[in-house]
Amino acid sequence: MQDKLNLMIPGPTPVPENVLSCMSKHPIGHRSEDFQKIVQKTTEQLKWLHQTTADVLTITGSGTAAMEAGIINTLSKGDRVICGDNGKFGERWVKVAKAYGLDVTVVKADWGKPLDPNQFKRILEEDTNKKINAVILTHSETSTGVINDLKAITNEVKNHGKAITIADCVTSLGACNIPMDQWGIDVIASGSQKGYMIPPGLSFVAMGKRAWEANNQSNLPKFYLDLKPYLKTVNKNSNPFTPAINLYFALEASLTMMEKEGLNNIFKRHARHQKATQEGIKAMGLKLFTEEKYGSPAITAVEPENIDAEQIRKVLKTDFDILLAGGQDHLKGKIFRIGHLGFVNDRDIISVISALESTLYKMGKLNVPIGQGIAKTISILNKE
Amino acid sequence: MQDKLNLMIPGPTPVPENVLSCMSKHPIGHRSEDFQKIVQKTTEQLKWLHQTTADVLTITGSGTAAMEAGIINTLSKGDRVICGDNGKFGERWVKVAKAYGLDVTVVKADWGKPLDPNQFKRILEEDTNKKINAVILTHSETSTGVINDLKAITNEVKNHGKAITIADCVTSLGACNIPMDQWGIDVIASGSQKGYMIPPGLSFVAMGKRAWEANNQSNLPKFYLDLKPYLKTVNKNSNPFTPAINLYFALEASLTMMEKEGLNNIFKRHARHQKATQEGIKAMGLKLFTEEKYGSPAITAVEPENIDAEQIRKVLKTDFDILLAGGQDHLKGKIFRIGHLGFVNDRDIISVISALESTLYKMGKLNVPIGQGIAKTISILNKE
Repeated sequence: MQDKLNLMIPGPTPVPENVLSCMSKHPIGHRSEDFQKIVQKTTEQLKWLHQTTADVLTITGSGTAAMEAGIINTLSKGDRVICGDNGKFGERWVKVAKAYGLDVTVVKADWGKPLDPNQFKRILEEDTNKKINAVILTHSETSTGVINDLKAITNEVKNHGKAITIADCVTSLGACNIPMDQWGIDVIASGSQKGYMIPPGLSFVAMGKRAWEANNQSNLPKFYLDLKPYLKTVNKNSNPFTPAINLYFALEASLTMMEKEGLNNIFKRHARHQKATQEGIKAMGLKLFTEEKYGSPAITAVEPENIDAEQIRKVLKTDFDILLAGGQDHLKGKIFRIGHLGFVNDRDIISVISALESTLYKMGKLNVPIGQGIAKTISILNKE
Repeated sequence: MQDKLNLMIPGPTPVPENVLSCMSKHPIGHRSEDFQKIVQKTTEQLKWLHQTTADVLTITGSGTAAMEAGIINTLSKGDRVICGDNGKFGERWVKVAKAYGLDVTVVKADWGKPLDPNQFKRILEEDTNKKINAVILTHSETSTGVINDLKAITNEVKNHGKAITIADCVTSLGACNIPMDQWGIDVIASGSQKGYMIPPGLSFVAMGKRAWEANNQSNLPKFYLDLKPYLKTVNKNSNPFTPAINLYFALEASLTMMEKEGLNNIFKRHARHQKATQEGIKAMGLKLFTEEKYGSPAITAVEPENIDAEQIRKVLKTDFDILLAGGQDHLKGKIFRIGHLGFVNDRDIISVISALESTLYKMGKLNVPIGQGIAKTISILNKE
C-alpha cells in the first residue's frame, strides 16, 4: 500500500513524525544565533549519548565519512594498524586504511562469527617495540548482525599503552551501552540514520584526549574531513562548512526524545526486542545466522535453510509493506536481516514475526503450527 | 516575528513549500527500486541543469566536499595547478590544493575585482612543456558577489591542450548560463542550498571525459570522496554509501520545478533581479562593492560608506525579518551581501530594497528622498 512502508532494515530506520516535522521547517542561516543554539544543544546531547566528556563532532556525510575521518585524523602513512574484519564493514575499514597507505594487519573472523579478543591481545602483546598505532574495528557488524566485544578489545588496546581504539559504532550507538570514557575508547564513529532515529546525512566522530594527541602526529592529506576546523568551530557553536541545517533540526528533536526515554530504557528496549525477535524466529523453525549470544541489539540475521531469503523478503514487502534487508555479497539470497534499531516499538516486533509466519505459511515452508513463533515472541515481550 | 524569516543570503536560500513537504516524507530504503527511480530521474535532471552529457555525481556533503572531490580525483601530488583567488572561496581552493601537496601558482585579484583571463592566458602560453595539469577557479565568488569570466578562462585552458578546468559553480549554477559541454568545462562543483532551492547537505560534481582521463592518472589518497565508486553505482541508479535520502526527495521536487520554469527563464529571472537590486541600491545613494558589469547574478555586495554594515543587517533583521549576509574576514562590517539566488520572486526584491530604505531612514543615513531606491527598482522590474 502506498506510503505504508515500515522500514525494518538496519538503516535508514523509521523516523518519528515530530522529527520529520521539525526537519521540514524553513532553513535558517547557519551563522545565526538561532543555529548556534542548536549546535550548542546537540553537542551537549551527543556527549550524553556517548557517555563522554570527549569532543563529539558533526559532519555532513554518511557514516563512512565519519569512520574515514577518525582514521585519517589520527594516523600517518606507513603507520601500523590492526583492523578487525568479520563482515562487510570490517572489510571497508581495511580498504580505507589501505587507501591511505597504512600498514594493515587484518584480524579476521568468518561472517556471522565475532572477532576473538585474544587474537588482538596476542598481537598487541607481541608488539613490545610499540609500533602499533591503532586498532580499528566494527562494534555491531551490520552485514551479519554480530556484536564484537568492543569492551574487551579496547581493554587490550589500553594494556598496550600506545595504540588507540577507533570504533565503528554506527549500528550500536543508541542501541546498547557504550560508555566511551569508562571503556577508554578513543574514537567512535556513528551515523544519523540508525539509533539516532533521523534520516541519513549527518555523521558523528567522538574524539577523546588520546585521539587528539595522535592527531598532532598525523600527516595524512585531508580538507573536508580534517577534524581540527570542526573542533575549532564547534567550540564557537558553529561548523567549518555549511552543514545539513534541516538534519540538525531533526537531530535536536530526536536527541530530546532520547533524553526523555533515558539511556538505560533505550538499551533495555533494544535488548528486549532483540530477544523477542531471536526467540520468535527460532520458534517458527527458522535458523539464526549468528549465535544468540553474539547477536547485535540492532539487527537479527536469519538463515532460512532451503528457502530463498530474497523470496521471503519479497513476500513480506508485498503482503505487509515491511522492508527487511537482504544478505550482502556472498550471503545474498542466503540470509535476511531484521533491523530492530531506533524508533521501534513492540508493535513492530509482533508484526514482523507474525508477517514472517504468514510468509512461510504462504510459501509452504512453515514446518510448525501457525502461531508458534508469535506465541514465543508475545510471551517474551510480556516477561521481560 | 517568529518563523517569518526571509533568507536573502547566498545560501541557504529559501525553499519552496512543496520541496519541504516532499523532504519530510518517511525515508525509504536506499537500495529499493523506488529510490533507484529517484536517482535515475535526478541524474538526468542534473545533466539538463549542467547542459551536459557528462557524469553528474551526487555526494552527501557540502559544496566544499564536491570541490575537493573534483581536485583530488583528477590530480596527483606535485602536479602543477593554477588557482584563481579573488575572495574567500578562491582562497579555500588554494588551501585544498596545498593540503594535497599540489604545486600551486596563484592568480590573484583584489576582493571585489574579477580575475583577469589574460593572466591565465600568459601563464598557460608560457607552459610550452605542458606541465600545468589544471586551472582551478570560482565562477561566482560568494564572498564578494563577483562573477569571474569562466568562459574566457576555460577557453585559454582549452588552447593549452593538456590542463583541465575545475570550476566552483556553487552560487552560479542555476543562476546563469553555464553550458558545460559548449564551453568545455571539465569539472563543475555545486551545492544544494543555492540555485537548487533545497536545504544544504547534497553537493554535485560533474565530470567530463577529460576529467575522467585525468582521473586515470590521479593517485591522491581518498575513500569517501573517491568518485569512481560514485560513477560505478550511479550507472546502476545507486550510491556507494547511504545518501541523504530525504534531500534526494527534495532534489527531485526542486529540479522538477526548475524544469517547468525552464533554464532560460531561470537565467532571465536572476539577471532581472540582479539589475533591479543593483539599480535600487545605487538610487538610494549606496555604493556597490563590485562594479556592475562584474556583479554575480546570485549576490549583490554593498559597501555603505561611513555606515556600519553590521548595523544595517541588524535593523533589517529586527524590523523586517530579512536576513542579509555580512562581509567575511577583512570585509566584516564594511560590506553586506544580498542574496537573490534560487527561489526568489519580485516581492523579495521590492521588499529588500524598501526595507533597506527604511533602515537607512531610521538610522538617519538616507541622503536621498524616501522612495527613490524602490522607484528605480520598480521601474526596472516593469521594464525588463
